[in-house]
Amino acid sequence: MSEITQLTLEAEELDAADELSKLRERFVLDDAVYLDGNSLGALPASVPDRVDDVVRRQWGSLRIRSWDESGWWTAPERIGDRIAPLVGAAAGQIVVGDSTSVNVFKAVVAAVRMSEDEHGEGRGGRDEILVDATTFPTDGYIAESAARMTGRTLRPVTPAEVPDALSSRTAAVLLNHVDYRTGRLHDLPGLTAAIHEAGAYAVWDLCHSAGALPVGLDEHGVDLAVGCTYKYLNGGPGSPAYLYVRRDLQPRFDSPLPGWNSHVEPFGMDPAYEPVAGARRGRVGTPDILSMLALEAALEVWEGVSIESVRAKSLALTDFFLKCVTSYVPEGRVESLTPTPHPERGSQVALRCSPTLGFARAGGAPNAAEVMKHLITEGVIGDFRHPDVLRFGFTPLYIGFADVERAARVLAQTLESFD
Amino acid sequence: MSEITQLTLEAEELDAADELSKLRERFVLDDAVYLDGNSLGALPASVPDRVDDVVRRQWGSLRIRSWDESGWWTAPERIGDRIAPLVGAAAGQIVVGDSTSVNVFKAVVAAVRMSEDEHGEGRGGRDEILVDATTFPTDGYIAESAARMTGRTLRPVTPAEVPDALSSRTAAVLLNHVDYRTGRLHDLPGLTAAIHEAGAYAVWDLCHSAGALPVGLDEHGVDLAVGCTYKYLNGGPGSPAYLYVRRDLQPRFDSPLPGWNSHVEPFGMDPAYEPVAGARRGRVGTPDILSMLALEAALEVWEGVSIESVRAKSLALTDFFLKCVTSYVPEGRVESLTPTPHPERGSQVALRCSPTLGFARAGGAPNAAEVMKHLITEGVIGDFRHPDVLRFGFTPLYIGFADVERAARVLAQTLESFD
Repeated sequence: MSEITQLTLEAEELDAADELSKLRERFVLDDAVYLDGNSLGALPASVPDRVDDVVRRQWGSLRIRSWDESGWWTAPERIGDRIAPLVGAAAGQIVVGDSTSVNVFKAVVAAVRMSEDEHGEGRGGRDEILVDATTFPTDGYIAESAARMTGRTLRPVTPAEVPDALSSRTAAVLLNHVDYRTGRLHDLPGLTAAIHEAGAYAVWDLCHSAGALPVGLDEHGVDLAVGCTYKYLNGGPGSPAYLYVRRDLQPRFDSPLPGWNSHVEPFGMDPAYEPVAGARRGRVGTPDILSMLALEAALEVWEGVSIESVRAKSLALTDFFLKCVTSYVPEGRVESLTPTPHPERGSQVALRCSPTLGFARAGGAPNAAEVMKHLITEGVIGDFRHPDVLRFGFTPLYIGFADVERAARVLAQTLESFD
Repeated sequence: MSEITQLTLEAEELDAADELSKLRERFVLDDAVYLDGNSLGALPASVPDRVDDVVRRQWGSLRIRSWDESGWWTAPERIGDRIAPLVGAAAGQIVVGDSTSVNVFKAVVAAVRMSEDEHGEGRGGRDEILVDATTFPTDGYIAESAARMTGRTLRPVTPAEVPDALSSRTAAVLLNHVDYRTGRLHDLPGLTAAIHEAGAYAVWDLCHSAGALPVGLDEHGVDLAVGCTYKYLNGGPGSPAYLYVRRDLQPRFDSPLPGWNSHVEPFGMDPAYEPVAGARRGRVGTPDILSMLALEAALEVWEGVSIESVRAKSLALTDFFLKCVTSYVPEGRVESLTPTPHPERGSQVALRCSPTLGFARAGGAPNAAEVMKHLITEGVIGDFRHPDVLRFGFTPLYIGFADVERAARVLAQTLESFD
């Protein structure tokens, strides 16, 4: 039996045994293998009619009355509560709105202020913010601004270096749960404990983990967290991000963006700011209702789905992808940047397209951008990340094992075509 | 001829002579008189199909490719350029995204930094930010945060007090073009000139003027401006706000929210922030595409419409409303908070529902909230603003003179019913 026949059969068996396979029906998909759900999740089938209702009836007909009657005003908290179980948070701690970048700003400044609030004017000497040096850049840019505006120093370190970098100077630490490039899953429980041990506050960016694996915010005592909703949560292009503030810290959440939506009495038109209690304190201005209610409809795909089962399938998918790639692609043409051990792997596989290895053609290996372009024309949609990475995201809600086999096979053919 | 007959006839004549009357067809409206477009603009007829296309085809079918192929990535600047002529700005100075509150933060902090940048470390003693004391509260809350985070003092003054309050201590001034409560139009050219005379930077909030009257940002040398798009620009509930940075100031625009969307090479994944040139420097994170492209479709109603003609009709509408109210409502039952002189009037009329005057019934006058509730059940939709204000907004694109007459007539009947 050829390798291809064997892996095709294995994929069939895995798909047949997959309890989540029927969830694919909850999405609008076509013949392509869509492995870019870690950049923009596919369209849930529940979304289009809902958005149409929001536009035509709620806005077009009820108009201003919808702020009450269609639940627009309370949407940020209500949708936050819908996300909460997916990231291991009890209700009342998550609010949806603004972009991830804006929420990183709120969270990092608030964390620094919690530290200050604990130590008073002298700050207890806590003058440093640590930030993941391997982060998606926006977190670093925003953390730099937060440091500048709170009079702290920003110190970029890799997550592995965090335990040694922590000291009595550390006010707050901003880390990514899963590295956007390599797909490495960082040790959220262990690092959070180390940060707390050092007397600092932990802010986690969940963009690449929420919806793909259990996060356990409450269980691990995370202080603040942010995440986007357009990747594994399928909220749509630029759908609003969210902010988690642990319940006991909420009274000390001192927002750098104290907009009227977080006032205790937003329609009191009080010239003095008095923050409301609870998660709503993370709100700023008027919520973008269209994007927000599209997200709410998108979250319906999670009905009856446990994040644990999603994680189990995600690992099986990435395991199988790595197995197929190893089997189909001649050694040395790509190398995986994604860790092999399960506890260190998110829901994506990043393959480095080595420019020096394994190619006979003049000019050496094709560059990763070229390879990805070709893959896409062949119906395998992943993405390219500077400078040499092919990124494949596996959304267990709509990706099956046959998809995975096909993606690896097309990748091998593509690389061969450049030979 | 009765007063009612006379004013009804006058309304008919005014509608017949109204060159903008046909624009009403560009909106989805019903039998109610919708005078709440200064809170949430009515639904433009061009929006629902566009949003459906964005959801089903752009997101559902093209998915990630839409960032390029559907123009998602460039939407914030493209839509900014569409708003620009409505506020008297040349292209390349406006970017759409985030909420008004978030943009106020960017603008005020950036203005303070421009001042600092001019004066160096000692700041030239410019340690004050002036803010409109009569502002919609969020501007005040955010300005307070901007002051706190830049080490300045916030000093609330009324717009009338600004000329005297300006001094060599003033770094920046945040003002509203039109007061959200009274509908008073402030002297943007005069105040901007006075602010510049004092060596400070002017930030204007255009929420209640853009789309209702000419603003003349370029002409009057405004430094920075922000505004929402869901009032007279009809962008939909919580549609993204915009930020104007005058072209020659853009190289000095130093954002407190330097997200990856404003990086010179956003996909370069550079750990060091280097801001792009131009209006895009005002961007932060991933734009909320659904809300943003709904706004883009909504702006099509402006095709062939001059803001000057809108202003002329707006003044005629509010003049006629005041005339009808004076004629129909017994003296002393309501008093207008909106200035009579045209140069001081926006596109709304605010009537104070006096609790002490003119009512025979036990318990005196009804409160304004009660009156507005009754008006709404009678098909006249305005809103109530704490503590005693009935607010009526006149959107010249879809409100006619017969609507105005009816609103005043129903108001008179409503007040009578409480007698």
